[in-house]
Amino acid sequence: MTLKIYDWHNGPYPARVRIALAEKGLQSQTCFVSIDLRKGEHKTEEFRAKNYSGTLPVLELDDGTLVAECTAITEYLDALDGTPTLTGRTPRERGVVHMMSRRAELEVLDAISIYFHHATPGLGPHVEVYQNQEWGLYQRDKALRGMRYFNDALRGQPFVAGQDFSMADITLIGGLIFAEQLKVSVPDECKALVAWYTRMQERSSVQNWRTMSA
Amino acid sequence: MTLKIYDWHNGPYPARVRIALAEKGLQSQTCFVSIDLRKGEHKTEEFRAKNYSGTLPVLELDDGTLVAECTAITEYLDALDGTPTLTGRTPRERGVVHMMSRRAELEVLDAISIYFHHATPGLGPHVEVYQNQEWGLYQRDKALRGMRYFNDALRGQPFVAGQDFSMADITLIGGLIFAEQLKVSVPDECKALVAWYTRMQERSSVQNWRTMSA
Ligand SMILES: N[C@@H](CCC(=O)N[C@@H](CS)C(=O)NCC(=O)O)C(=O)O
Ligand SMILES: N[C@@H](CCC(=O)N[C@@H](CS)C(=O)NCC(=O)O)C(=O)O
Repeated sequence: MTLKIYDWHNGPYPARVRIALAEKGLQSQTCFVSIDLRKGEHKTEEFRAKNYSGTLPVLELDDGTLVAECTAITEYLDALDGTPTLTGRTPRERGVVHMMSRRAELEVLDAISIYFHHATPGLGPHVEVYQNQEWGLYQRDKALRGMRYFNDALRGQPFVAGQDFSMADITLIGGLIFAEQLKVSVPDECKALVAWYTRMQERSSVQNWRTMSA
Repeated sequence: MTLKIYDWHNGPYPARVRIALAEKGLQSQTCFVSIDLRKGEHKTEEFRAKNYSGTLPVLELDDGTLVAECTAITEYLDALDGTPTLTGRTPRERGVVHMMSRRAELEVLDAISIYFHHATPGLGPHVEVYQNQEWGLYQRDKALRGMRYFNDALRGQPFVAGQDFSMADITLIGGLIFAEQLKVSVPDECKALVAWYTRMQERSSVQNWRTMSA
């Protein structure tokens, strides 16, 4: 079995899948195909036939099945060995992990991404054909509030979804990676969030991403 | 076991969970608590302690666990009886269902929702404290393109994620319910999408929603 991943080596969403692959021990079965975001290779008709939304990453299976969207790819990877470690085991865990991961997208990662594409030069004028700066700035502020929310949550529990590492941690890591790349600082008072992020950097899956993305 | 759902009877996102409950035969175990969106009851501090994002629906379990986000609630409900029928059985099915459901959000349902909150009076001036009309209109056009995409997909397969009914159909149903409520018409050429939607209306879970929401 080969897992073919279309992505970009230091993209924050691609990071989510690269970290999940490492957590699941699947890296040796994976090959990466680079899609150059700054050249807009993700917006070509050819690529949009693989993923209508024109975003990275996309997983292609041996039978040609295409799976876009980080959450969907993580679901696939986590189900492969019959022993989910990222998406929850019980119904309650599954519900909470999915909620917290989606919340990390809505309130931090996706918000930072909109800021990037709309209120900074983004991928350059060639790719960012429409920008709405006001919306971009609004989303940056939303992301800063989101960081405060997660800081509060992490004061009471070691991981984003509770007692165990999960997909929700990976999503929030993606958000902080994106913030770092754009020099959006985590608010000073967010000590628990920073402490959690420091712990996350110690995981070999995240270290591995740092090396691959350098 | 009682499933307590905070929602609003005819909300398009709440519809997703109400349809999922009916598909899983869980309605008799459910009680609904009305949160009045037009009064902004979802934006109070009290409600945001239940769901930081301030949106409906939210599921509360007997042990006090709160699960927001339609996808997360659907994951919980579908896992309860150990026999998933909405979120996929195999890893591949899980991946494809999650991808198509997320895509139905991104390209149709969430886009229509942004249109509603930003380029129409939305829930009224009391609730819509910030609007970005240009972004709202941009998202409406995105939703119309999204409908064309799903129309193409449904020309080749009976359901949104392939051969079986799934959470992805429910998400797209939510999108078309929202469009209907706002009188955003499905483009004329989308015959396969309209035929699929007509078939969806025949499901008892969707009929049941129509009755409850009237
Ligand atoms: N909802 C998507 C978002 C993926 C995404 O936005 N990826 C970035 C790469 S870091 C991208 O492709 N951006 C290019 C663009 O939006 O133009 C997911 O979860 O996979
Ligand atoms: N991502 C959320 C979105 C839910 C949502 O937007 N629900 C609507 C009700 S139909 C809402 O609460 N809107 C009020 C608002 O955004 O102010 C989900 O999937 O549950």
